[in-house]
Amino acid sequence: MSDINKVVLAYSGGLDTSVIVKWLQETYNCEVVTFTADIGQGEEVEPAREKAKSLGVKEIYIEDLREEFTRDYVFPMFRANAVYEGEYLLGTSIARPLIAKRLVEIADETGADAISHGATGKGNDQVRFELGAYALKPGIKVIAPWREWDLNSRQKLLDYCDQHGIKVEKQKGKSPYSMDANLLHISYEGEVLEDPWAQAEDDMWRWSVSPEEAPEEPTIIDLTYQCGDIVAINGEAMKAHEVLSYLNKVAGENGIGRIDIVENRYVGMKSRGCYETPGGTIMLKAHRAIESITLDREVAHLKDSIMPRYAEVVYNGYWWSPERRAMQALIDETQGPVNGDVRLKLYKGNVTVLGRRSEDSLFDEKIATFEEDEGAYDQKDAEGFIKLNALRLRIAASKGRKL
Amino acid sequence: MSDINKVVLAYSGGLDTSVIVKWLQETYNCEVVTFTADIGQGEEVEPAREKAKSLGVKEIYIEDLREEFTRDYVFPMFRANAVYEGEYLLGTSIARPLIAKRLVEIADETGADAISHGATGKGNDQVRFELGAYALKPGIKVIAPWREWDLNSRQKLLDYCDQHGIKVEKQKGKSPYSMDANLLHISYEGEVLEDPWAQAEDDMWRWSVSPEEAPEEPTIIDLTYQCGDIVAINGEAMKAHEVLSYLNKVAGENGIGRIDIVENRYVGMKSRGCYETPGGTIMLKAHRAIESITLDREVAHLKDSIMPRYAEVVYNGYWWSPERRAMQALIDETQGPVNGDVRLKLYKGNVTVLGRRSEDSLFDEKIATFEEDEGAYDQKDAEGFIKLNALRLRIAASKGRKL
Amino acid sequence: MSDINKVVLAYSGGLDTSVIVKWLQETYNCEVVTFTADIGQGEEVEPAREKAKSLGVKEIYIEDLREEFTRDYVFPMFRANAVYEGEYLLGTSIARPLIAKRLVEIADETGADAISHGATGKGNDQVRFELGAYALKPGIKVIAPWREWDLNSRQKLLDYCDQHGIKVEKQKGKSPYSMDANLLHISYEGEVLEDPWAQAEDDMWRWSVSPEEAPEEPTIIDLTYQCGDIVAINGEAMKAHEVLSYLNKVAGENGIGRIDIVENRYVGMKSRGCYETPGGTIMLKAHRAIESITLDREVAHLKDSIMPRYAEVVYNGYWWSPERRAMQALIDETQGPVNGDVRLKLYKGNVTVLGRRSEDSLFDEKIATFEEDEGAYDQKDAEGFIKLNALRLRIAASKGRKL
Amino acid sequence: MSDINKVVLAYSGGLDTSVIVKWLQETYNCEVVTFTADIGQGEEVEPAREKAKSLGVKEIYIEDLREEFTRDYVFPMFRANAVYEGEYLLGTSIARPLIAKRLVEIADETGADAISHGATGKGNDQVRFELGAYALKPGIKVIAPWREWDLNSRQKLLDYCDQHGIKVEKQKGKSPYSMDANLLHISYEGEVLEDPWAQAEDDMWRWSVSPEEAPEEPTIIDLTYQCGDIVAINGEAMKAHEVLSYLNKVAGENGIGRIDIVENRYVGMKSRGCYETPGGTIMLKAHRAIESITLDREVAHLKDSIMPRYAEVVYNGYWWSPERRAMQALIDETQGPVNGDVRLKLYKGNVTVLGRRSEDSLFDEKIATFEEDEGAYDQKDAEGFIKLNALRLRIAASKGRKL
Repeated sequence: MSDINKVVLAYSGGLDTSVIVKWLQETYNCEVVTFTADIGQGEEVEPAREKAKSLGVKEIYIEDLREEFTRDYVFPMFRANAVYEGEYLLGTSIARPLIAKRLVEIADETGADAISHGATGKGNDQVRFELGAYALKPGIKVIAPWREWDLNSRQKLLDYCDQHGIKVEKQKGKSPYSMDANLLHISYEGEVLEDPWAQAEDDMWRWSVSPEEAPEEPTIIDLTYQCGDIVAINGEAMKAHEVLSYLNKVAGENGIGRIDIVENRYVGMKSRGCYETPGGTIMLKAHRAIESITLDREVAHLKDSIMPRYAEVVYNGYWWSPERRAMQALIDETQGPVNGDVRLKLYKGNVTVLGRRSEDSLFDEKIATFEEDEGAYDQKDAEGFIKLNALRLRIAASKGRKL
Repeated sequence: MSDINKVVLAYSGGLDTSVIVKWLQETYNCEVVTFTADIGQGEEVEPAREKAKSLGVKEIYIEDLREEFTRDYVFPMFRANAVYEGEYLLGTSIARPLIAKRLVEIADETGADAISHGATGKGNDQVRFELGAYALKPGIKVIAPWREWDLNSRQKLLDYCDQHGIKVEKQKGKSPYSMDANLLHISYEGEVLEDPWAQAEDDMWRWSVSPEEAPEEPTIIDLTYQCGDIVAINGEAMKAHEVLSYLNKVAGENGIGRIDIVENRYVGMKSRGCYETPGGTIMLKAHRAIESITLDREVAHLKDSIMPRYAEVVYNGYWWSPERRAMQALIDETQGPVNGDVRLKLYKGNVTVLGRRSEDSLFDEKIATFEEDEGAYDQKDAEGFIKLNALRLRIAASKGRKL
Repeated sequence: MSDINKVVLAYSGGLDTSVIVKWLQETYNCEVVTFTADIGQGEEVEPAREKAKSLGVKEIYIEDLREEFTRDYVFPMFRANAVYEGEYLLGTSIARPLIAKRLVEIADETGADAISHGATGKGNDQVRFELGAYALKPGIKVIAPWREWDLNSRQKLLDYCDQHGIKVEKQKGKSPYSMDANLLHISYEGEVLEDPWAQAEDDMWRWSVSPEEAPEEPTIIDLTYQCGDIVAINGEAMKAHEVLSYLNKVAGENGIGRIDIVENRYVGMKSRGCYETPGGTIMLKAHRAIESITLDREVAHLKDSIMPRYAEVVYNGYWWSPERRAMQALIDETQGPVNGDVRLKLYKGNVTVLGRRSEDSLFDEKIATFEEDEGAYDQKDAEGFIKLNALRLRIAASKGRKL
Repeated sequence: MSDINKVVLAYSGGLDTSVIVKWLQETYNCEVVTFTADIGQGEEVEPAREKAKSLGVKEIYIEDLREEFTRDYVFPMFRANAVYEGEYLLGTSIARPLIAKRLVEIADETGADAISHGATGKGNDQVRFELGAYALKPGIKVIAPWREWDLNSRQKLLDYCDQHGIKVEKQKGKSPYSMDANLLHISYEGEVLEDPWAQAEDDMWRWSVSPEEAPEEPTIIDLTYQCGDIVAINGEAMKAHEVLSYLNKVAGENGIGRIDIVENRYVGMKSRGCYETPGGTIMLKAHRAIESITLDREVAHLKDSIMPRYAEVVYNGYWWSPERRAMQALIDETQGPVNGDVRLKLYKGNVTVLGRRSEDSLFDEKIATFEEDEGAYDQKDAEGFIKLNALRLRIAASKGRKL
């Protein structure tokens, strides 16, 4: 264990990762570099600096990655209409690749030979962190304390803090749930949720009101798309992370974006999770709406057929893989004409499309006129179309095949 | 045109198909058999008898097909979680195969040599009717008056009625929209909807209240599944069509099931449609919920990957095809363990899963305990799992591949 | 029929298309522009000039498209490893898009308002020509004489020639089969082949000797790949069409590339065809071999999963479509590292891979050493890998699921 | 390590697994049950009895599983036309599930609490054995000596034999390659093959002559299919394993079935392997031929689209999984009409289809006549077919989209 000299830790500033700092220093007799990123989790990141210093950390990275996160990870994923298992918008999954990338970049910058994270051995996040790290820096070493140590209960962690002089702050209103947050979503696991029949508690949710508590008056918004990405809201141009922040706010106020699901983890078990993805819920609906008038039918169907695989690849942690890149090439190739506006009504949990328009629309209101003038549609063509499409079925039936 | 002796017509009793009766009698000098089915469209079918008689029809078929429709068509489709283009629950598509089947069966019973329908030459329904008919009775002739005649405006139809003594009833509250209804849904097309940017009018909708008008109090329901189908609601056993009727009522009352989309028709054009699918919206959500605890991960993903093709096949009118049967075999094979209960909250347009339970659940609340006792989960296994999954990526990176 | 002023005809110089020239002039009272391309069919194209002149044609296009055809159509398709229905290398399909493109370009250049071709109404080629033409020039008119006229037998064609003074040359050695040839392949249909149980005649084949007649000594060749395309043979750099010509020659001499299949046409019928694709047979085998060491596993599998759809799209005539372009984007994205050499043995119908090497190889001969040094492979990792991959199966089995 | 009382070992009777017997007895202080199966590997299995006895084994299972192997594993897989990575016929993969099943059944019968095998930690076979075992008996323990012990060289194994009195027979003609054989194939890995550029040696191959050495006269055979399986050869009814034995013989004599590939292992590395699959090579070609006249087009394409996933599932070791079962349900559903005869010519490495016929053929030689009489094909239908299929492309082009 003595061949580790320096390790870069994904550091939140909270109890668990503070323990990890100390544990790494002790166990590996190595220097620890902390990396704390603002990816929109909604908590201050600056306090992590003092905390890290107090633990003897000399190299401290604190970064605002909200724009990069939204622009280079969230938006490309939404171009794919990615949904995992019919429900999950991949909020946790999509934040890991960026963290992994920065961890190895910082390892390069600081001459560290290892990275470390606070994800447990039962979840998907360890996989996502580590696959990313290995893909980007194959010789990197990964230390996953939760898979190594025996501090496997809250009490043991607190005892460890006590023994090592780590200050434990009383967090008022600390949630009992295992949570993860970034600009795209916040997740809840554990506690009462471990029984899939048990109802989630109302006071668990953080980012949205319930539909019941949402305003009686709907909110109308216009989203403007360019090449499949939202570039303006209500006519006002915004950066990617501003778009998502705005949508989170307005969606959360209108009770939008909660789901409660049982999902299949890559490591092989089923897990119940509750997620708030307010802005993302709007984005999925709106992106499909703008695509509905701008994408060719077969292209849309092709995207739909490849989507489950794309979502699986992202969920399983293979963002940094050649197969994700190849699928992204297909998806991005289709998004050139995905331009225009979508008008939405937000009301007590509902996202309703009121209209969509585009200069690249393939919808032709005057299709009748178009056809008569241009010969594009002659109702009699339908007979031949049906007859030849039916031919294989007729031949089969005429030869006695039963359906 | 003289080789047609008798034709079976899908007859609604309304103006258009009444004109068709007369037009067929005149144009083909043939006998017309009418077939009118109750598939849950919400209108009386008996009046069609007198109407048909008054047009000189001698063989009149009026049938209640609600149970067969729901049990043999709607339910199998929902086992697939079928959604067309991410939004559409295939409400119109799924009713056509049964009508096509009865048309050719009645042709057999009555010795008719042709069938006829009132679908236009621009839509999907002509395709669905005719593919089904050809697949089941390859020698059948199909007469599609809208592709043949020149009665291509409402005034011409009314003039025709006038000339041929067809009584035109003033329908109070007649919708200006082109509509189609069955137990699964009701659809609206045309008029203001032809502009995809124009908002649908509030008074268009028939089967549901708006979320705004829905009750302030949520409704809680329990659905019981057996082999992927709902067999009881709130503990009360029901037939298939009773299930769907019940869900339509309770969903409609709670403002659930409206969508407004632009879809791609099989004949090649985009079309804007509004749909109310109250019960179906619940069924999709609930079926995914019960599958989430009872289906194996890879089976669920396999179903998801094949679903877009299944939905396309149904949408395009290939219910009666060997490829639909083959996919159905895969889907049905997976549904044996899809048993148990789903509890839902219905509230102002929202369907929220509160819980799901099953004796066939693959969710293991005691996975921790299970693992320690049985060795099923050792956190250290995760390291090997990740290492080998990363191997190909590491080799690539070590040989200089960039991501 | 009088609204056609000028029509561009895909003209081979043979009997059928010569009749079409005259028939178009007479039937449509229009000017005919002939377009004759050398796409490697192995016959002189210059004689078509005199022939066309003798029919009164004033605008005559004769072009050598062999390089464009191979480089921009054949090679991109082989990057996909495209095979239709497990056997067919798409030789006819891939030549049509280029012809369609030139037809509409020439229509633009000459101010023609229509195009015409000599494909029958039962085959795939009419679809391929016309889909391409409509996709590239939506207002174009298409005249397909075989779907319009009544010259539906050879005798009627000869009579027509007689009546219109079209000189019919006695072609010695004229094949009785319906044939199509280009640099990629030659096809045979009709006659004895119409019985799928009947054996193809030995003297039917034109481009290859039979394995029996091939030399007793094998031929060894080295192919060099760059970005998925062959750029040199036996170390000698070649243009695309030179590559294919070379391979056709050497493969044909060694009895390589014959197949005899029953395929499913897009228009709905089954058809028996025999094909010689000598060079293409080598190219498919060799491309898979170079990919086997240079492509990532998941990328290779992704390509395999999308390939049947790509092949279907090309077969059905949708080369000029956004879905083909989207798939091509995915495929081309993967081909950057597909560089290196493949060594093959050609012997009496067999193409045997003797070796493959690449500076971009992901194959690691020293994987053992690599692992020990770098920790990339620890046999103990396999245990965790298997355990977690088995977890869902174990949970299911422990809960009583039977397989 | 003391909690293992009895272990069932997949025992070949060779040096490696004999060492494992002793090592298990020593290391785990447990009883060893040996299981040796004849799955057509071409070596006597009875000698394993004396060998096992001499090692102190009391419970010895020796079984002839050739029929079960061919009928229940090989044949169902060939119904899928399964090919891994475009080349590999899955010969090794398909034998493991049966061995895994018998191992756990024997564990049940003998009260053993563990199973063991001689596969290394770098290959696929460990995965296939263990996934199968866990899926069928979730509480089973698996001992994989190659992942545990330090006998990682041939010399160490020989020393171990020497120390423990295990008699080592000089095997004359012992191949230096790592080999695996069963009724479907024989494989070669290692040695010179570890360089993918190095040519395989001629004297490596065991089951087939080279094309060069094959007879000058072709062999003609007729295969009769029933529901997708071969049931007779040259008119003579045969059991499944007799079919495969016969085909192996006749194919091997004609130089058929050798391949030389680099494949991607599930554990993440590329590996070069040479395979002889004489009978299987015929079976794949012949099955496609009989399907070509009996399967509906869309069913055939559906099968082709699902095949790569099926092959991957089998290759990766998930035969005993619900996803394989679901895909098999789809595949088997399609095979009812796959009946009839295929005639093949075997000659110097080539398998040539000479003809195919079936009472369930969907090929219609008289399609012309059929059409005229029945109206099944009217060439004019093609115009409407093309027009509507082109509609989306025309609309796009008319709105300025470029291809």
